[in-house]
Amino acid sequence: MQQQYPSLLLEQAVAEISKLPGIGRKTALRLVLHMLRRDAREVHALGNSLKRLVDEVQYCRTCHNICDKEECDICANPLRDRSTICVVENIQNVMAIENTGQYRGLYHVLGGVISPMDGIGPNDLELQSLVERVEQGDIAEIILALNPTMEGDTTNFYIQRRLAGNRVKLSVLARGVSVGDDLEYTDEVTLGRSIINRTALN
Amino acid sequence: MQQQYPSLLLEQAVAEISKLPGIGRKTALRLVLHMLRRDAREVHALGNSLKRLVDEVQYCRTCHNICDKEECDICANPLRDRSTICVVENIQNVMAIENTGQYRGLYHVLGGVISPMDGIGPNDLELQSLVERVEQGDIAEIILALNPTMEGDTTNFYIQRRLAGNRVKLSVLARGVSVGDDLEYTDEVTLGRSIINRTALN
Repeated sequence: MQQQYPSLLLEQAVAEISKLPGIGRKTALRLVLHMLRRDAREVHALGNSLKRLVDEVQYCRTCHNICDKEECDICANPLRDRSTICVVENIQNVMAIENTGQYRGLYHVLGGVISPMDGIGPNDLELQSLVERVEQGDIAEIILALNPTMEGDTTNFYIQRRLAGNRVKLSVLARGVSVGDDLEYTDEVTLGRSIINRTALN
Repeated sequence: MQQQYPSLLLEQAVAEISKLPGIGRKTALRLVLHMLRRDAREVHALGNSLKRLVDEVQYCRTCHNICDKEECDICANPLRDRSTICVVENIQNVMAIENTGQYRGLYHVLGGVISPMDGIGPNDLELQSLVERVEQGDIAEIILALNPTMEGDTTNFYIQRRLAGNRVKLSVLARGVSVGDDLEYTDEVTLGRSIINRTALN
């Protein structure tokens, strides 16, 4: 049953908020009523920051990471290792890898992975621009850091084939048991691979 | 550790969104990146509807329900029973009771319940205006429909005392087992009350 809203403005705001992923009408109503209890200036700040973001945000012309100018801070940083490119699915993954503090190379954001089920093919992703970056030379290694899923593996395989003629080194993230995992509950594929790819200690 | 955002605009939008209740930085980032994939006009519509809401929304001068004009649709409706007032904590509760289709009287939205722990006293709520509505006469019954919590009961008790001199009939929502409940898992206070206040079948 369609809920009756006492105010049209309230109904419109709830309808807009509930378009966001994972937010239903009840949560949207709770958020909107929370905003009404806050200072009107704070809600204006929220609305304005969202509008500014979609109007002014840019994507790095080289790696397609989100940024405020033509080139992102990582690509513009002369201290980064320019011979290594880490290929990731999205911006969150750049942030996750940056947070580890373990990587000093550049990135390439594909904007997704190949997924025939969702109608996403190679031409919907930034794959051609990756090939061009490699063909311009100076790249020694490509680290494929896609999610360990079927779609990620498909995309890895596609990239491997597309770069077959180049002398660039290709690698994928190590797969194995996570820190803190309980072996009893680790899935058998992961556990099996972690035995096959065991790391020598001496 | 403070996460590094690749864009200042992104960081500001995430900061604003994560001020909302129940939304952390990860969820805020996910929502903001989802908005970036949408049409910019949709995000403008979202921002504008929130701004319009906080700027233009009004509260009914009689029952304090949210509305777009001076008097809400319920108070303005000549078909509603004007001799009964249902006292509720907030706007969501008006909507919940309206959705049952079982109530044809008017409402009074307190805007909260008495809660000394949270520093909310009688003067922070619309209690004086409730007393004035009753003293103006024509009210036969007040239904106290507050949440069945300690704060709700305290507020019920306070209203009962404030209205002690009036001849208005006071009632509270029936308490008992919910439809679909399993008696094995019903708390003993509720189950005990449902036995004491059992409903005769013949």
